[in-house]
Amino acid sequence: MNKPITDKLQPAAIPTGERPGSRKVYQSGTLWPDIRVPFREVAVHPSANEPPLTLYDPSGPYTDPTVRIDIEQGLARTREPWVVSRGDVEIVENPRAVKPEDNGFAKGEHLAPEFTAPRRVYRAKPGANVTQLEYARRGIITPEMEYVSIRENQRREAGAKFIRDGEDFGAEIPDICTPEFVRDEIARGRAIIPANINHTELEPMIIGRNFLVKINANIGNSAVLSHVSDEVDKMVWAIRCGADTVMDLSTGRNIHNIRDWIVRNSPVPIGTVPIYQALEKVGGVAEDLNWEVFRDTLIEQAEQGVDYFTIHAGVRLAYVPLTAGRVTGIVSRGGSIMAKWCLAHHKENFLYEHFEEICEIMKAYDVSFSLGDGLRPGSIADANDAAQFGELETLGELTQVAWRHNVQVMIEGPGHVPMHKIKANMDKQLKTCGEAPFYTLGPLTTDVAPGYDHITSAIGAAMIGWFGTAMLCYVTPKEHLGLPNREDVKVGVMTYKLAAHAADLAKGHPGARLWDDAISRARFEFRWEDQFNLGVDPETAREYHDETLPKEAMKTAHFCSMCGPKFCSMKISQDIRDAARQQNDVDINAGMAEMSQKFRDTGGEILVPVEPAE
Amino acid sequence: MNKPITDKLQPAAIPTGERPGSRKVYQSGTLWPDIRVPFREVAVHPSANEPPLTLYDPSGPYTDPTVRIDIEQGLARTREPWVVSRGDVEIVENPRAVKPEDNGFAKGEHLAPEFTAPRRVYRAKPGANVTQLEYARRGIITPEMEYVSIRENQRREAGAKFIRDGEDFGAEIPDICTPEFVRDEIARGRAIIPANINHTELEPMIIGRNFLVKINANIGNSAVLSHVSDEVDKMVWAIRCGADTVMDLSTGRNIHNIRDWIVRNSPVPIGTVPIYQALEKVGGVAEDLNWEVFRDTLIEQAEQGVDYFTIHAGVRLAYVPLTAGRVTGIVSRGGSIMAKWCLAHHKENFLYEHFEEICEIMKAYDVSFSLGDGLRPGSIADANDAAQFGELETLGELTQVAWRHNVQVMIEGPGHVPMHKIKANMDKQLKTCGEAPFYTLGPLTTDVAPGYDHITSAIGAAMIGWFGTAMLCYVTPKEHLGLPNREDVKVGVMTYKLAAHAADLAKGHPGARLWDDAISRARFEFRWEDQFNLGVDPETAREYHDETLPKEAMKTAHFCSMCGPKFCSMKISQDIRDAARQQNDVDINAGMAEMSQKFRDTGGEILVPVEPAE
Repeated sequence: MNKPITDKLQPAAIPTGERPGSRKVYQSGTLWPDIRVPFREVAVHPSANEPPLTLYDPSGPYTDPTVRIDIEQGLARTREPWVVSRGDVEIVENPRAVKPEDNGFAKGEHLAPEFTAPRRVYRAKPGANVTQLEYARRGIITPEMEYVSIRENQRREAGAKFIRDGEDFGAEIPDICTPEFVRDEIARGRAIIPANINHTELEPMIIGRNFLVKINANIGNSAVLSHVSDEVDKMVWAIRCGADTVMDLSTGRNIHNIRDWIVRNSPVPIGTVPIYQALEKVGGVAEDLNWEVFRDTLIEQAEQGVDYFTIHAGVRLAYVPLTAGRVTGIVSRGGSIMAKWCLAHHKENFLYEHFEEICEIMKAYDVSFSLGDGLRPGSIADANDAAQFGELETLGELTQVAWRHNVQVMIEGPGHVPMHKIKANMDKQLKTCGEAPFYTLGPLTTDVAPGYDHITSAIGAAMIGWFGTAMLCYVTPKEHLGLPNREDVKVGVMTYKLAAHAADLAKGHPGARLWDDAISRARFEFRWEDQFNLGVDPETAREYHDETLPKEAMKTAHFCSMCGPKFCSMKISQDIRDAARQQNDVDINAGMAEMSQKFRDTGGEILVPVEPAE
Repeated sequence: MNKPITDKLQPAAIPTGERPGSRKVYQSGTLWPDIRVPFREVAVHPSANEPPLTLYDPSGPYTDPTVRIDIEQGLARTREPWVVSRGDVEIVENPRAVKPEDNGFAKGEHLAPEFTAPRRVYRAKPGANVTQLEYARRGIITPEMEYVSIRENQRREAGAKFIRDGEDFGAEIPDICTPEFVRDEIARGRAIIPANINHTELEPMIIGRNFLVKINANIGNSAVLSHVSDEVDKMVWAIRCGADTVMDLSTGRNIHNIRDWIVRNSPVPIGTVPIYQALEKVGGVAEDLNWEVFRDTLIEQAEQGVDYFTIHAGVRLAYVPLTAGRVTGIVSRGGSIMAKWCLAHHKENFLYEHFEEICEIMKAYDVSFSLGDGLRPGSIADANDAAQFGELETLGELTQVAWRHNVQVMIEGPGHVPMHKIKANMDKQLKTCGEAPFYTLGPLTTDVAPGYDHITSAIGAAMIGWFGTAMLCYVTPKEHLGLPNREDVKVGVMTYKLAAHAADLAKGHPGARLWDDAISRARFEFRWEDQFNLGVDPETAREYHDETLPKEAMKTAHFCSMCGPKFCSMKISQDIRDAARQQNDVDINAGMAEMSQKFRDTGGEILVPVEPAE
């Protein structure tokens, strides 16, 4: 068996190694000394006389040069002892067996290989609830909670002075994130740690408006058979670029087996839309969906370790006709599946009807809800309409149900929304859903730019992130047009990374300015290598620079290609600053005449020798 | 002489021809029947049963298949009779002769060819003021004013119903833009028509908060000799993509000759930063600058037909020390030149001191001021600081001086500004500068993304455009890293085009929604060709689509590559809509059971036949 698997895996494709100029470092816990929280440390040139900058790092062991990656074994199951030691889980002796329909009846060479490395499957003991929300409300600080508190601080230390001049619209971000703060936010439902007890390879992360804004990248095989390694590669590529969670939106065949490979090799939470697989199991006929096949799919995926499920329980029968007058109707795939089911049976959405039973499953594995916005607007014309906001009211009601069960919840949001209607979405979500984390797609601020929807949506994403959205679902340049390739995934993730950071800055997150200031100092001091390495995408920055000034010497030059060697605004500014420093104790204006003379005498002209232009 | 010029011009490189799916159409004036205002008309598939969509079109005769382009002759001088017939201009009998320093003393094969087609040079008769502001205040509606009023309407007709649900923050955009409205806005200083009397090739356009948000693209040769045709090509490429004005930021040699080629072939306003050329004339030594060389440069460029000048008259001596504590000092090239001059001489900025004399020159040719923000912030850390806002106060004072001379003015703005500090920039500019049009660079909303600064800045640009900025200066992916190539120019212009449109939408511009709704209907109805052609960048949209579904047949398929042929949310929505229409007069909820049965009977399953997947 090994040979064919290896062939199909193409393990050479998985990107590993540290990112440029970066070093993988870890910080241990205090309450839980065994936890090791990863960071990316970027050292700068000695001339800067600055400590290295610590950045958040979702890339997992793939950027740790000391770890040997073997995707056939999966990542180390670091969380397994945490889960087991709580004493409230049991091993599932007869886990659900893989059925032919789980993989769309693929067989022979069309069947993706199984992930065969053995593992134990857990679930809560009868009557137990193993969610982080349950623990939080019982006053327990779990290793997951301490882990994310350390992670959020990015090695900032208590007592330091942070620049916090943002407008946070009522968020309550502390200078330093403590484990107790994490526990309290989870207990209040304002944050979630998506962490299925069967995803023990996970490096926990937190989603909530009082934490760093996170981003999600979607991957997924299409109808045509993908190599499983392609999907693992896409996931690794996305987190290497900076994705905090990954949704596997696979359709068609081999959904089960591919997901196994992804979860076993993922250090970030994996989300899915279970109705997609359920639909495949009933041959693609929405009317044939039923609670039993859906329930079976939830168990299947919960046992695999999926961390959050998008559930379109808010697409109620009564809302469906509200979409009839829309310009673009229903654009959510899950939403339209449920709408079709409701119409065909003229019955209430069975996900809504069975919501409490779904909660029972979620709490046995700690799968978090991502309550789907099946009626999100697909065009500017449909933004903030009765269908959309009707569904949001229902999601608020379901949030309360989930919280009664101590199940973690976040809420999905639009869609296409013009700028002036974005804040109303956030305000309504906070009010209706009791501050449960908002997880939005974009929103796209205009419909007119196919090919540039990563940008139309980054505008809306940055704004809604500022207003309080906890996680932004990326959009790639291929949105509306086709399936993203590797380059599109990179562009989408980088775009959302910068949008999320712009939101953190505007909110006044205590750690945000440190990053901007570090790169700006590097820019001002012509530390080109530092500017590349500190950027969201060092490789692209370097490549763009080298197109114009490719020579190695140019990377230490005190000028850039915009002003050229003869005249440089940055250099003049440094002269001004130096002059001001020399003046120091005398009044700076009174001393200007003197400065003027000194300036002429000592460095009044800045000419950097270069080769003649012709 | 012809041979070598033709070689250097490479005329084949100039892109011509209509844009995909578009037809060049013209609308005549009423007050001035001879004017012909160009539009891009995009016809949609007959199945849509819709009229064609009319879009704003800055691309000039290059997209008119009936016009023969010959860049050695330049464009037709359509405006010349308008200018002459006003009776207030005279032919300059001895225009300023080209001096060796105008081209940086380039000679022989290094000297770019002169533009040799003969033309007349005009200036105001002694004592006359030929600015659009002068005419507006005298109650005169010029052909330029009627031209832009027609242009702004995009063939919308009075009495039609427009969707206007935006938040305009005090803007006063009428449903229909009349020539009188244009005149009044110009008279109040709230809008400008940059239109040098010597740029008779111009197709006039207007910049003001009560009009469509415009975008500017920068071009310019670098120190190494460019072919003049490369620069003309860059300009044509930029306007073909959608740039409303173009700034020529050339430095080094051949500045004069290259600018001649650009202006003579440009249908859009050309802006420059005259201090760049003045600096070249004094050998790159800022201290050697003086009023005489600057004045001479203004005359030189005014006679060539430059439509607006960036003048850094607000960089006052007293503000320079305020930049000493900044993270990135002075990042404007013009700002740092003037700061250096001020420091070296310990004197007040000579542009400030000679501002009234500059006004005298501006009004003799109708060159508009673009008052430069030489102290704009170059990093998040420096946003909204004392240096920046001090300069803005001075720009407000200079605006009043220019208005006293009836010279048109716009104000340049930042820079790097986090989201929560953007609105303060707009509010302060409106107040300080009496609603003179704001023309901003970005602003970039974070410093951490070199390689993606078209996006970090598009976020800020869309927002500040919404708040009231009249024109957005584009930023390309190469910002901070290198000089943009053709692809970068395209990406920059398209990005800013969508940002400007997102701003128009949010402001509730009466024409904005028509575009979004047209493309959304095309998307919903799977009119793929229409979706491509209606987008800001048809070629890129098509290319992205074809990467996944290349076959021609797929462009008429009723599905896309996201959901695939088996299940399509758009198709289901159409079924819902059709069902709702059938119900029509009966209560839609009461009729749902019936609908449910019909749905099953008639089209409950949507399967589009395609080739089997394997």
